[in-house]
Amino acid sequence: MIITTTNIGPSLVETLRELSYDRLFILTDDHTHTCCLPLIAQSLQEAGIGYQPVTIAHGDDNKSLLTLQRIWDALIDGNATRHSLLLCLGGGVVTDIGGFAAASYKRGIRYINIPTTLLAMVDAAAGGKTAINYKGLKNEIGAFHQPLHIFLCSTFLDTLPTQERLSGIAEMIKHLLLRANDGTAFATCEELAEAGISPVRMGELITSSVAVKSDIVAADPTEHGLRKALNFGHTIGHAIEELLLSQGTPVPHGYAVAWGMIGELYLSHIREGFPLTAMRQFTRLLHELYGACPITCNHYDALFGLMKHDKKNCADNIQCVLLADIGIPKLDCILQQNEIDEALDFIREAN
Amino acid sequence: MIITTTNIGPSLVETLRELSYDRLFILTDDHTHTCCLPLIAQSLQEAGIGYQPVTIAHGDDNKSLLTLQRIWDALIDGNATRHSLLLCLGGGVVTDIGGFAAASYKRGIRYINIPTTLLAMVDAAAGGKTAINYKGLKNEIGAFHQPLHIFLCSTFLDTLPTQERLSGIAEMIKHLLLRANDGTAFATCEELAEAGISPVRMGELITSSVAVKSDIVAADPTEHGLRKALNFGHTIGHAIEELLLSQGTPVPHGYAVAWGMIGELYLSHIREGFPLTAMRQFTRLLHELYGACPITCNHYDALFGLMKHDKKNCADNIQCVLLADIGIPKLDCILQQNEIDEALDFIREAN
Repeated sequence: MIITTTNIGPSLVETLRELSYDRLFILTDDHTHTCCLPLIAQSLQEAGIGYQPVTIAHGDDNKSLLTLQRIWDALIDGNATRHSLLLCLGGGVVTDIGGFAAASYKRGIRYINIPTTLLAMVDAAAGGKTAINYKGLKNEIGAFHQPLHIFLCSTFLDTLPTQERLSGIAEMIKHLLLRANDGTAFATCEELAEAGISPVRMGELITSSVAVKSDIVAADPTEHGLRKALNFGHTIGHAIEELLLSQGTPVPHGYAVAWGMIGELYLSHIREGFPLTAMRQFTRLLHELYGACPITCNHYDALFGLMKHDKKNCADNIQCVLLADIGIPKLDCILQQNEIDEALDFIREAN
Repeated sequence: MIITTTNIGPSLVETLRELSYDRLFILTDDHTHTCCLPLIAQSLQEAGIGYQPVTIAHGDDNKSLLTLQRIWDALIDGNATRHSLLLCLGGGVVTDIGGFAAASYKRGIRYINIPTTLLAMVDAAAGGKTAINYKGLKNEIGAFHQPLHIFLCSTFLDTLPTQERLSGIAEMIKHLLLRANDGTAFATCEELAEAGISPVRMGELITSSVAVKSDIVAADPTEHGLRKALNFGHTIGHAIEELLLSQGTPVPHGYAVAWGMIGELYLSHIREGFPLTAMRQFTRLLHELYGACPITCNHYDALFGLMKHDKKNCADNIQCVLLADIGIPKLDCILQQNEIDEALDFIREAN
């Protein structure tokens, strides 16, 4: 269930009181342990709700098997049973790895997500995709395991750095591109991009963004069909993200997706007739927001190699989602290397 | 789907031809690579069906995270996609760890089980419980992930050592204890125990044994209720198995379950009124078949500690399945330490 709140402590206490569980574990990273846990710890204490904290190091390079083992170990040491509950309080790394720990511990325990970044709110925390990175491959090992509840609390966004905010906005733009076209998509993107957007309006846009994703996930939880649409921008985007991570110059996920969307909007126009004007509007806005993509033509072969490992592929084909128009995704489009190179050229030309 | 066959090669070819997949991986251990893979390799070759073999070391101590990583690595190196297929050819270790590799690789790919031991046929291969052992705890990490198909081929049993055969018979006895009482359970157990039972009759009994499990699993795939009945004998049995493994004196799973059933039949009689005569018949037969359980009273505390980590538990309570009679399981029976000690005494007195 998605629970929208502006007062996370009392909302959480109310939810926990309705649940039956034997032990509660709260997973945070070192940042959310300091910045976010205090926002709920007091309410839990006042309500007499005990918990065991589990803290991991922040950052995508800690979404690893080693960190997963530490979470398993903490659950074992804390005598977690199948009736225990794991609460993931953090960004996408915490909800992804915590979700997979919950999926795999004793063959699955329940978990609740409290995303603390915009990106995690509109993307990672919903949909039940859990994972770790493995051998330099993003989300290579994981499971589909739906969270019991997701709390959307805009209070966490008050102190969010601009870069992280923009990272989330990229996924919101993606959802606007996937939502049935009512003519407002681009105007809403521009609104999102404004620094002065009111917290109330932002809250509304977050809720409607999560609804786009939830509707798609409900129709296809394990991504055999429609859910693939949510990968728009991610075929090229993931490869860029992995490449930059492996070079020791990581970028926020949303930046990579934004650059990936620039390339995939271009291919959408070329191959599926996505309208030229809209393509230009969106790619220009994405470029303004996310700046130059730090790749050169020397990276093309490496990016192609990484795309070969994309989970959306079948056999040796690189499969991608393109758009025939706003709200009209075309699934399983097979990309040739020359098309990918052309899209990468387009991303760089936008620079 | 459960496919019963006496000619595994052609049956498998027929099934694979009906499936859509891009790459086929066949997981074996070193034993089944030598003894069982040739039984299907020729048929595959004749049919022009290619595959990539993945071989792991045999034995329960290899049902580890390290071995799981090797399987993930082989899938990555072999360019397995979400549309690839993993075939697990072996005993319970191969189907358990292979099933979990399939459950977790790219958030889940399809797999087929071809169990080659009696135990795997009647237990591990069906029901979708996949797992690895972790930190000395049996099946601590895993997932529910149903195989696409299970092949039951009695040909594999022709060369099965007596100890492995008996290990499977223990689970068959468990299924007979769980099946609605038609008055034939004990006679069928005695029939199973006879060395001279015909292969045809054994095949019939295997099929009906798997049906008991399949019916229960279909009613409750993720073990929130009825499926717990399948854990009969396993609360005490798993603890014995883990203890002996940690001492470097492992026993076949079925032996530990048989000893566990002796203890839990005793508790079933004491607590739930399981009929005394039947209790004596079954425990005597189990003792004759499986011999003395190598535990002493010095092990009781360690066994209790291991039972505390049992996945069936809730909070600090050790939960167990007992029987009010043949075919009448009582779920979630909470055991006190003194009751467990008494059951362990009874197991040792049977020695």
